Amino acid sequence: MSERLEQQIAFIVEIDKLKHIYRRTFLMDGSRTENDAEHSWHLAVMAMLLVEHAKEEQLDLLHIVKMVLIHDLIEIDAGDTYLYDEQAAQDKAEREQRAADRLFAMLPDEQAREFRALWDEFEEKETPEAKFATSLDRMQPLLHNYHTQGKSWQQHGVTSDRVVQRCSEIEIGSPALWEYAQNLIHQSVEKGYLAQ
Amino acid sequence: MSERLEQQIAFIVEIDKLKHIYRRTFLMDGSRTENDAEHSWHLAVMAMLLVEHAKEEQLDLLHIVKMVLIHDLIEIDAGDTYLYDEQAAQDKAEREQRAADRLFAMLPDEQAREFRALWDEFEEKETPEAKFATSLDRMQPLLHNYHTQGKSWQQHGVTSDRVVQRCSEIEIGSPALWEYAQNLIHQSVEKGYLAQ
Repeated sequence: MSERLEQQIAFIVEIDKLKHIYRRTFLMDGSRTENDAEHSWHLAVMAMLLVEHAKEEQLDLLHIVKMVLIHDLIEIDAGDTYLYDEQAAQDKAEREQRAADRLFAMLPDEQAREFRALWDEFEEKETPEAKFATSLDRMQPLLHNYHTQGKSWQQHGVTSDRVVQRCSEIEIGSPALWEYAQNLIHQSVEKGYLAQ
Repeated sequence: MSERLEQQIAFIVEIDKLKHIYRRTFLMDGSRTENDAEHSWHLAVMAMLLVEHAKEEQLDLLHIVKMVLIHDLIEIDAGDTYLYDEQAAQDKAEREQRAADRLFAMLPDEQAREFRALWDEFEEKETPEAKFATSLDRMQPLLHNYHTQGKSWQQHGVTSDRVVQRCSEIEIGSPALWEYAQNLIHQSVEKGYLAQ
């Protein structure tokens, strides 16, 4: 029991590093980019509020929340890979698998298996819960881009066809959120936040 | 439905401000203080891992996670009140009630009621879930203080008797975590991180 608690606390101390992993997305006031811990918290609250808009009914909300809370932990070792960075995407899977191997092994066995399974499920995007978690993970930076007049898109030369391509994953988990997102993308182009 | 989604999204945009509310606690590497969004994320993952150490059995984990995810939202208006600041504590309740009135009213009615009820429950510390959530909320900054050699305690002249007094709430929700915490406090005094 005491050794078990020591393992759990060591993991809790280790994952503090997620607060240092910065994303390309700017906070809503544009003052700085956000980090993975903040992003994960935001997705979890979004899950609480928006689960009613999921494509499938009776999703397991706790399961969705768990997935979004831990989905970026592997970036402690692997770093953040920008959604629109095709070069970095090439070895992303390998970097992230190594990170998962090290990080989750810090936990007591059955908790290591639970966290690994949650992360694998999120990555595979096959269950209704994982599909909806992906919808949230695409929707959140879109909101931030819109409310910062496209700051991150412009910094990285992202165009509307690429945004539509990557954000269309929202539809798989939530047609209602995709309808909302499409309108945001349309308005972003209209207002000059996003290049065509 | 569309108006409902607009309300939910407006709330999601509003709570981005939690990422700007800084606490007195330093990140584990001492580089800067942490903000409420990061803190809330950390507590939610701690709940996932540590719920087995709660005093009472068969707690509702989703309920605990929801409470810790939203427990500091009111600080968007009310600001963070340092656990050891007795002057600020005097009008804390009034400031926080006003904040809750404004903030949760942005949501659709039944979600506003759910969020308000979760926050009230957390504040009242009467249910087993709220007691355990409080244990986590006291335990987390203690870990951060220990791993930064007492940086926040020293900056604010906090002594061990006050840490014991405030952190003893951990015992109510989790005697096992309190045993661990007492050892951390003892070691902090031994190593000179915390003044006696």
